[in-house]
Amino acid sequence: MKNFIITKSRRLRSTPFSSRIEKQGVKGYTVYNHMLLPTFFSSLEDEYNHLMEHVQLWDVSVQREIEVSGKDSSNLVQLMTCRDLTNSKIGECYYAPLVDSDGGLINDPLIYKLEENKWRICIADSDVALFAKGIASAKKLDVKIFEADIDILAVQGPKSFDLMSKVFGEEIRNLKFFKFDFYVFNQNNFIISRSGYSKQGGFEIHIENTKAGIELYDHFFKIGKEFDLKPGAPNLIERIEGGLLSYGNDMDIGDNPLECGFDKYVNLESDIMFLGKKQLQKIKKEGIKRKLMGVKIDANSISVVKEIPMYNEKKIIGMVRSAGFSPKFKKVVGIAMMNKNFWDLGQKFQIHLDDKEVLGEVCSLPIL
Amino acid sequence: MKNFIITKSRRLRSTPFSSRIEKQGVKGYTVYNHMLLPTFFSSLEDEYNHLMEHVQLWDVSVQREIEVSGKDSSNLVQLMTCRDLTNSKIGECYYAPLVDSDGGLINDPLIYKLEENKWRICIADSDVALFAKGIASAKKLDVKIFEADIDILAVQGPKSFDLMSKVFGEEIRNLKFFKFDFYVFNQNNFIISRSGYSKQGGFEIHIENTKAGIELYDHFFKIGKEFDLKPGAPNLIERIEGGLLSYGNDMDIGDNPLECGFDKYVNLESDIMFLGKKQLQKIKKEGIKRKLMGVKIDANSISVVKEIPMYNEKKIIGMVRSAGFSPKFKKVVGIAMMNKNFWDLGQKFQIHLDDKEVLGEVCSLPIL
Repeated sequence: MKNFIITKSRRLRSTPFSSRIEKQGVKGYTVYNHMLLPTFFSSLEDEYNHLMEHVQLWDVSVQREIEVSGKDSSNLVQLMTCRDLTNSKIGECYYAPLVDSDGGLINDPLIYKLEENKWRICIADSDVALFAKGIASAKKLDVKIFEADIDILAVQGPKSFDLMSKVFGEEIRNLKFFKFDFYVFNQNNFIISRSGYSKQGGFEIHIENTKAGIELYDHFFKIGKEFDLKPGAPNLIERIEGGLLSYGNDMDIGDNPLECGFDKYVNLESDIMFLGKKQLQKIKKEGIKRKLMGVKIDANSISVVKEIPMYNEKKIIGMVRSAGFSPKFKKVVGIAMMNKNFWDLGQKFQIHLDDKEVLGEVCSLPIL
Repeated sequence: MKNFIITKSRRLRSTPFSSRIEKQGVKGYTVYNHMLLPTFFSSLEDEYNHLMEHVQLWDVSVQREIEVSGKDSSNLVQLMTCRDLTNSKIGECYYAPLVDSDGGLINDPLIYKLEENKWRICIADSDVALFAKGIASAKKLDVKIFEADIDILAVQGPKSFDLMSKVFGEEIRNLKFFKFDFYVFNQNNFIISRSGYSKQGGFEIHIENTKAGIELYDHFFKIGKEFDLKPGAPNLIERIEGGLLSYGNDMDIGDNPLECGFDKYVNLESDIMFLGKKQLQKIKKEGIKRKLMGVKIDANSISVVKEIPMYNEKKIIGMVRSAGFSPKFKKVVGIAMMNKNFWDLGQKFQIHLDDKEVLGEVCSLPIL
């Protein structure tokens, strides 16, 4: 595939770490929430192998945090998501599909509860602040909504625990999955969550003081050698194998959360109020007609820039939405939206890659 | 400046013309409304010179069109903008700042009135559909809101009139600025507006039938030789000189429309209802504290990836937000947000480029 240059401008915002990352040899970028997201430094495959064994530091500042505070903030946050947040606790974060009144998926953020009336919605790639502002203005809610000036560094990989405890102290090993707390480095306080966009374990550090964040970044690389720390980025292959979905790639506003396998976050029996409730109840009753599944394809490479149709006896039975070559399975793995009657494990299909017909098979997600 | 590769994925949507444009030698992309926007084929300067004399065909499919229809559609569209649309007419389009309830700028679209209850909002780079959906859901408005499956080709440059009349007939020369109508090519109907993101004259063709659009694209290049037709893209220099603002570059949600020089589209005396009205009335009464202006800088090149501070006697007096070298003025021209007391024509300033201090001067916008 031919390569193209990304033309930078203020509109594609840099992060506080961009200049460091460029010195460290980043080669590619994508754009996410109007901001630059590094994509690779050497190759997807090398970085996949490294992530499985060691530890990487990712600049994921693009995971912007929309802060919602004020008397009506819990009401507003609940209106946007089909996940029941009634019993949510301060110090925990919640993966929560946001839906519009048609039940269409608007985003799949991690929602942090900081105080009873203060939330941060750590978003995927769509302008959730505008959705929230639209609802709040129309309902005259007593809330303040803004994109917080927070940048996230993710520390991911099996050695992330050793690295993090060396910097923040041993107690960080006790932080449970999807909880967060405050930790100190160099007399600066950081919110750190046990979370991240990989299945190899790790943390996300939420940086409100940019200068302190840059000092932390440099400190990591100063002491990280013994853990083979490298700069990195969310890895396409690892996240597909792990079943971590990507908004805009695997799902969009044309899909509903039941089609995306979010059933346990679609709480239709509870008495919470959210915008798409009626529509999702109807969809649930009628049953979904398509579903996201894993796929394995007998090929050594693939490039997905738009949906690729999947055939069974010349009939389209699904669409591949993300895929890449897996060093583990020695073939292409991917995520596809499969039509009803064709989403069972083991379903065979054909797709066309570079004018050749290749074979594939539907599998579970995560891909085992 | 070092170059970086753009990593493609389904999330950065291609357009129906991407494969043609890549064969024609596009070298760079940016991302706009989650879609690829070509940025250059040879160089900004060559393409600037060509645009001033001849005609270019631009793939500006990224100018997505949000369709708002239904009984309450006019109400909803008016709620989002401070421009009074009471006397708007079918067949015309309106440049209209959208504002949130704090008076912050959400987008600066061109709003097309297709029928009394059918509008298309042709947007700059932010998810206006989510803002509209938020308001509509909360107010339970009777509207349908969706991103229409429409891709735009812009024909820009002084020879655009000759080229277009050869394809669509002589009557297209009579289409007035910011009006639109239906025209036929190859038995297919296209909405064409006399509009576009340059000051060299031209049209925008709104393509609903992709196959017909591709045939049209190929036809343009088949017959375009006599007009020296080339593929192109919105040109940074030409649009700065012409005072065409870019949302995300020159202005964002932290700015209000009065600071951006949109005074004539901020109709605070009329009795229309829009979300930011109270706040804008307050801002108007108190007077703005900053304003977008043109700047000229004594330098041969510049790269703006974030705001660049402008100094007067060591005090920051403004921020450069977009800039590039102008072949016409033989120096850098730009757009800057200037603080009060420093926004007068002729105001001198210093900025630091590559560790050197260079001098500049505030000028009008458009830059004359």
